[in-house]
Amino acid sequence: MKVYLNGKIVNEDEALIPFMDRGVLFGDGIFETIRLYQGKPFRFDRHLARFNEGCRGLRFSQPPDDRTIENAINELYHINVGEGDAYCRMTLTGGAYDGSKTLKRLAPPNLLIVVTPLEPYPRHFYEKGLRAVVPGIRRNEGSPLSSLKSTNYLNSMIAKQEAADRGADDAILLNNGDFLAEGTASNLFFVSRGLVMTPDPECGLLPGITRETVLELCAKLGLSVEMGFYSTEELLGADEAFLTVSTGEVVPVAVVEGSTIGEVCPGPITLRLSRAYKGLVQKELDI
Amino acid sequence: MKVYLNGKIVNEDEALIPFMDRGVLFGDGIFETIRLYQGKPFRFDRHLARFNEGCRGLRFSQPPDDRTIENAINELYHINVGEGDAYCRMTLTGGAYDGSKTLKRLAPPNLLIVVTPLEPYPRHFYEKGLRAVVPGIRRNEGSPLSSLKSTNYLNSMIAKQEAADRGADDAILLNNGDFLAEGTASNLFFVSRGLVMTPDPECGLLPGITRETVLELCAKLGLSVEMGFYSTEELLGADEAFLTVSTGEVVPVAVVEGSTIGEVCPGPITLRLSRAYKGLVQKELDI
Repeated sequence: MKVYLNGKIVNEDEALIPFMDRGVLFGDGIFETIRLYQGKPFRFDRHLARFNEGCRGLRFSQPPDDRTIENAINELYHINVGEGDAYCRMTLTGGAYDGSKTLKRLAPPNLLIVVTPLEPYPRHFYEKGLRAVVPGIRRNEGSPLSSLKSTNYLNSMIAKQEAADRGADDAILLNNGDFLAEGTASNLFFVSRGLVMTPDPECGLLPGITRETVLELCAKLGLSVEMGFYSTEELLGADEAFLTVSTGEVVPVAVVEGSTIGEVCPGPITLRLSRAYKGLVQKELDI
Repeated sequence: MKVYLNGKIVNEDEALIPFMDRGVLFGDGIFETIRLYQGKPFRFDRHLARFNEGCRGLRFSQPPDDRTIENAINELYHINVGEGDAYCRMTLTGGAYDGSKTLKRLAPPNLLIVVTPLEPYPRHFYEKGLRAVVPGIRRNEGSPLSSLKSTNYLNSMIAKQEAADRGADDAILLNNGDFLAEGTASNLFFVSRGLVMTPDPECGLLPGITRETVLELCAKLGLSVEMGFYSTEELLGADEAFLTVSTGEVVPVAVVEGSTIGEVCPGPITLRLSRAYKGLVQKELDI
């Protein structure tokens, strides 16, 4: 596999960075994951905007140029993938550590871009819904990091490990105030009392591009949306639930903490949004 | 500078790891910092025990052998430092990323050990106390990560940056329940009503080896200790306050959020504990 590292296309095994990079020592980095449909990144400008926002949030001095990134992604897609859908991750790390434990940086950041064939979620997730747990570990609603896609990602990995340990597919995390926040790499929606509900950004979540797109689709389809502070009980009593994630789109949730959600999975609104999402992608990307 | 990387002593610029290491992509790593007094690490066994606990907590399969680590530290001290006190950081990263976003690991971890001359805290911290702010960003009391020394360290860096932006020396963080937790790389103590007070580990703090040592010294000196859930107001009304940190020992706090703490800084109990700490180090290490 070829990857892009700081301006060059190199073999994966040549993509090395100094151990003394702030990204290695402190998890000081920003990343973005983008789905490419037949080689075309969906909502690329929004992903880039969020990436640049993250860079500003962590005071990276030199966020890379948008066109450089676009060209690198195109080139890697043609080398590594060629046809079909692909997964892209771009990762920017903090650069050489100079003793500062603040966000002050003297060294330039390191940028890696990876494009690989998309490994789709299991088909049965879409046909029957996934099984989720609500783990003990919480999102930190009191940290600006919760709304940045930083490489401080262990919290979600611990949650997903708990899901695996308990025989489930994924985890839906609460914050310290016992309010639902998000999945381990996805945003949460559920349908109740005829409303499409999703946690408020203040619950300690990363507002995803797919979440944003689904909210747009709700408006277009005339579905009423409520953004709020919800308990696990409200989710368990919902008629439908789904997660949104760039690489997987709209993913139905069948079971949470052993309780079946609603009477049928995927529920009718989940299906409608899932189809509308696919339609939007095709239209926007002309594929 | 020479460093230890996976069994070898190499030049710092040869200490490279793959960009696709879980440590780079997700901040999946454990570290430990140890102060060496004239080449001898203080409470080395306790630091190693905590390092190994962290490895178990994050399910690292092969924590490195204790003697290997000890020998590497000794060798690096003699090469890089030679005399006087030194700072040691050992960092273990998660190894090659295989697509798993859980704690399941297929690849061996990467271990880096660095030993450099100690850069002491500014002398005026000890003579007059440091100035701290209580930033908006919170510790996550609902995550086991808060009690592990992981390379997900950005939260503390953001807090310390806020301190720098506001002209202060350091930050003391609250958790989401508005209770005091710890400094950005230190534990908090204060003296009030004749008691030595320190936040309860459930407040979302990393219980440091220096904190542990100071608690031992309190018992030895007959000082009553209370561990609890404290507000910023309780700290502002204290008679004395100090931070504990392996590399800096007992560091007096003079001012918090613009309010002077107590009537004199360092306060009498802070000074007593600071001297007792130095005495204990000399005795234990025979220096």
